[in-house]
Amino acid sequence: MEKYQKELDKWFKDNGWPYWSPHEILARLFEEGGEFARLVNHVYGPKKKKLEEVEQDVEEEIGDIIYTLICYANSNNINLDDAIRKSMDKVVNRDAKRF
Amino acid sequence: MEKYQKELDKWFKDNGWPYWSPHEILARLFEEGGEFARLVNHVYGPKKKKLEEVEQDVEEEIGDIIYTLICYANSNNINLDDAIRKSMDKVVNRDAKRF
Amino acid sequence: MEKYQKELDKWFKDNGWPYWSPHEILARLFEEGGEFARLVNHVYGPKKKKLEEVEQDVEEEIGDIIYTLICYANSNNINLDDAIRKSMDKVVNRDAKRF
Amino acid sequence: MEKYQKELDKWFKDNGWPYWSPHEILARLFEEGGEFARLVNHVYGPKKKKLEEVEQDVEEEIGDIIYTLICYANSNNINLDDAIRKSMDKVVNRDAKRF
Repeated sequence: MEKYQKELDKWFKDNGWPYWSPHEILARLFEEGGEFARLVNHVYGPKKKKLEEVEQDVEEEIGDIIYTLICYANSNNINLDDAIRKSMDKVVNRDAKRF
Repeated sequence: MEKYQKELDKWFKDNGWPYWSPHEILARLFEEGGEFARLVNHVYGPKKKKLEEVEQDVEEEIGDIIYTLICYANSNNINLDDAIRKSMDKVVNRDAKRF
Repeated sequence: MEKYQKELDKWFKDNGWPYWSPHEILARLFEEGGEFARLVNHVYGPKKKKLEEVEQDVEEEIGDIIYTLICYANSNNINLDDAIRKSMDKVVNRDAKRF
Repeated sequence: MEKYQKELDKWFKDNGWPYWSPHEILARLFEEGGEFARLVNHVYGPKKKKLEEVEQDVEEEIGDIIYTLICYANSNNINLDDAIRKSMDKVVNRDAKRF
């Protein structure tokens, strides 16, 4: 993720764009998550559409969610590789203890 | 809320519509919440639009969220008046203790 | 809902509590919705628990979501009965056309 | 992200864990997003706490959200690097046209 974080930060700096405030980014995360939810209901839910039509859209929404999180991470000095690593280790360690 | 719950239940029964599954209703809640989030960013966030343009939409999104919750409540035997009353009492009692 | 809206508004006024900002209320909505989502996965999802244990909690989370929306409505002059009525009429009219 | 996706997939395969269903993963996403929202209100909202106390937690929640998305991506054959790349390009291209 480091590559993506640096690349995005360079764009924002080069263009003089400020990051949004934390609450504004959070609202965007909710919005993007909601669009993802709509697609899950389209593909797997009561309003089924053809799978191929929305597969591309699902990829896009997930990309948008992660993009939003990169913005938050960049504007709050969070290293996403550290964050992902810790979350993955948590699952492995928690489940390793079960057996 | 009792009136709304009964009215909706009558429609669904009269038309032979089944309620969606809990997970499907939850996905819809996320979707409607996300549309509400988009509007909050439009009115109060970085992409400001004219207030009048979206006021009507905000009312609609909030209505859609509550409609979704009525569907969930009806299909899971939840009395929304009880639910609201308890949540309101919780706030009053919690904050009454502060002073 | 008028009764709930007025009652809540009276408390806030009597106690001199300000409503939160729209973005702050939205964040709370996301939080309460997320707690509701957790319960749906508990009752119907991969981490099944006993139904009775969480039924009470589900009612509480739905109440909290609607409470949060009442706060938003009160601080933005939205009439929730109008909002619910319009959302319900939309569904009835849309689906009436299908048949 | 390829590294994380493959690593997680290996764990699940090695341990014979199935991925959750799309709706179950979505509910988890909503839950994790809601916990993130709670922290944003803690750090920047009406219930301010000391920044240092929650900084660690914010990193953890963002990690959990991305972990959840990796699960979804793995179980639906989505390449997250492609997804992120497209979302980033979309922003750059859209904003490049503005100037």
